[in-house]
Amino acid sequence: MTDLRAATLPYAAPAGSSRPRDRSSIRRTNLGVVLRILRDAGPRSRAQIATDTGLPKPTVTTLVAELVANGLISEGSAQREGAVGRPGTLVRIDGRGLCGIGVEISTSYVHVLALTLGGDSVYEHRVAVAVAEAGTEEVLDLTAQAIRACFTALGRDGIRPVGLTLAVPGVIDTAAGTVEYASAIGWRKVAVAEGLRRRLGQPLPHLTVDNDAKLGALAEYVQTEGSDVHDMVCITGERGIGAGIISDGRLLRGSTGFAGEVGHMPLDPRRTPCACGRRGCWETMVGLDAILRLAGTGDGDWIHDPAVELESRLGEVRRRADEGDVRTREALARVAEDLGLGLALLADVLNPRVVVLGGYFTHIGHLMLDRIHEVLRERVMAPDAGGCEVRLSALGFAAAARGGAHLALDAVYQDPGAV
Amino acid sequence: MTDLRAATLPYAAPAGSSRPRDRSSIRRTNLGVVLRILRDAGPRSRAQIATDTGLPKPTVTTLVAELVANGLISEGSAQREGAVGRPGTLVRIDGRGLCGIGVEISTSYVHVLALTLGGDSVYEHRVAVAVAEAGTEEVLDLTAQAIRACFTALGRDGIRPVGLTLAVPGVIDTAAGTVEYASAIGWRKVAVAEGLRRRLGQPLPHLTVDNDAKLGALAEYVQTEGSDVHDMVCITGERGIGAGIISDGRLLRGSTGFAGEVGHMPLDPRRTPCACGRRGCWETMVGLDAILRLAGTGDGDWIHDPAVELESRLGEVRRRADEGDVRTREALARVAEDLGLGLALLADVLNPRVVVLGGYFTHIGHLMLDRIHEVLRERVMAPDAGGCEVRLSALGFAAAARGGAHLALDAVYQDPGAV
Repeated sequence: MTDLRAATLPYAAPAGSSRPRDRSSIRRTNLGVVLRILRDAGPRSRAQIATDTGLPKPTVTTLVAELVANGLISEGSAQREGAVGRPGTLVRIDGRGLCGIGVEISTSYVHVLALTLGGDSVYEHRVAVAVAEAGTEEVLDLTAQAIRACFTALGRDGIRPVGLTLAVPGVIDTAAGTVEYASAIGWRKVAVAEGLRRRLGQPLPHLTVDNDAKLGALAEYVQTEGSDVHDMVCITGERGIGAGIISDGRLLRGSTGFAGEVGHMPLDPRRTPCACGRRGCWETMVGLDAILRLAGTGDGDWIHDPAVELESRLGEVRRRADEGDVRTREALARVAEDLGLGLALLADVLNPRVVVLGGYFTHIGHLMLDRIHEVLRERVMAPDAGGCEVRLSALGFAAAARGGAHLALDAVYQDPGAV
Repeated sequence: MTDLRAATLPYAAPAGSSRPRDRSSIRRTNLGVVLRILRDAGPRSRAQIATDTGLPKPTVTTLVAELVANGLISEGSAQREGAVGRPGTLVRIDGRGLCGIGVEISTSYVHVLALTLGGDSVYEHRVAVAVAEAGTEEVLDLTAQAIRACFTALGRDGIRPVGLTLAVPGVIDTAAGTVEYASAIGWRKVAVAEGLRRRLGQPLPHLTVDNDAKLGALAEYVQTEGSDVHDMVCITGERGIGAGIISDGRLLRGSTGFAGEVGHMPLDPRRTPCACGRRGCWETMVGLDAILRLAGTGDGDWIHDPAVELESRLGEVRRRADEGDVRTREALARVAEDLGLGLALLADVLNPRVVVLGGYFTHIGHLMLDRIHEVLRERVMAPDAGGCEVRLSALGFAAAARGGAHLALDAVYQDPGAV
């Protein structure tokens, strides 16, 4: 019986389907098949890999030797399979010697993080900077410097970076490595990949630039490992609101990589002006500025003060709500209502199993979750909101950098021969 | 280099990835690999298939023999490969002896259509019926009768149906084969699959029930064969508005199959009441009732008359617009504006390459396309509307039935051994 969820279409073949391939690409594909079996199904013998994959045993032996030589897998203890026969030696994912790097340029910091193939963090560092005020050249200088420091630390530990993904909160042309438009940091048409390549010199690991919400969603999806969650919408919560969408276990990018721009859905009948020049955008209702404006008492209120760290100001909002402050509670109720309205729309369109709220929502979202769930049950067309559950992110502000590191590593799983 | 568009995630494996398999499933998988190579890359020799797939030549010979025996492929003319060597015999998709059946229950008809594995239509029949008024039992009786007539005709021609997909305009529980809620035809909790199985008796080909917009999208996607279109949003245009979404070459279903419910996006600041009980839903702005209400002059106007065939009434709207009638032109401009508003939102979220407008839009949508494209360029965040182009469906009202037949056939391509 066909799995309808995974049904692909006849005639028009998507990426990864049955196109003819040459010998060399078959070998590289098979290296990936073996590596992914070890990732998804755990350590096993060569004989078991042959059975699992349908590849001939001598082929598996050759592939395993190449993966061991490249430092991607290692041989472990012997295992006796059943009561009779020779014990088989188990092979397992290793990859301690290589890592993926994720770098996030956010509104107020540059965050660098490196993960090994097995998912262990081997480097993490954050530099504070007011990105919008600093200007692109200075921010790229600082980012290059942070990456160089990471390279140095990894080199000292004998760890080789296989790829580097840069996360930026904006509309990205991933093919060109260019930020098209990032209102939160005031960037427009910035050639980030080229700028970093020029500063860092050669040789560089494979460098890509991507949207922070999409990379954050990758990181959130990795967190769900082992669960039945394969459809997610991950909402960033800063001044701007973006979404990273996981559909049937894959990141939804759209035809030119611009999917997930949910911040400007025209949902506000009051038509409040938005930074984008339009009116009534969702992020004017539920973005960081909205909750601070609604909860604050005016100019004298320090929760408006940009000089105070955001975490402290959000802590104050939480404290006032806990103490029963009416204005704060009404503000949270208002934002919960409007957040529910937009999430219900996204649930109708995408039917996610889980919505993850990131950014500022991780600090005060718990005060809104009940009402959000109610709005979903009221508004979503499918019974019981289509089974959609809203959660707060556990990854905090490092989610996008983490997702970037995962994406860099994914290239190894797709094509281990390229390492 | 990894194809970022197709990137799947580490650790959490989606359907169809590297889970261990047993011998029998490997053989069945390989049958599908061979069949899909022939579909996607055209007729070829066994030697070429072995090169294309990386399967050993004796394995290919066995697989081809099994597919020939099942009537899925046939041997054709000999081909001399290059200047030297023996000529190879070409094998190609055949499947004249089997077909997929699609059945659409719409508001005003039941449509039955059968396609062979190669995509040729071998049966098509439509029965007019006012579905909402007739009641579920009568409609299921009539549908069973229409399917029986199709079986009889196919049997006479020696064609075996391998699967049957029923399309219904509503929220469907595909696992149970139940219509949860279909406002356009007034159905709620109707066990369609069970009702048809009881009426048709045994043995039946594999029977599934699915949403009409999703199946229509499958059919539209097949139409794009050979193009670079792999991200689409297909909008149904009847009293209700639904969407079928193709993302990276796959139908987007969501976690429980309810994705694509776009008709109730809360976009109307005037908050017009909707049949669903909510206010301000998109379908109150752009559904069939909206255009007729805005264009018509009142009770005496025959374009409101449900006794007159819809095509004639839409033809009258078109005629009035062509003659420059101000009221009609303003109505079309209003709906184009609101259609653009909702499509811009969907383009921001999904970044489709193409939006296809079906249903009533195929009759008068050409009068709105220019304005819709303008609104998209004004509203979508990505440059040049993210490359999104809006087209009218060329399939007309049979799109969902056609998509159902394709889906039934897709089961063969995924697992030819099940036939």
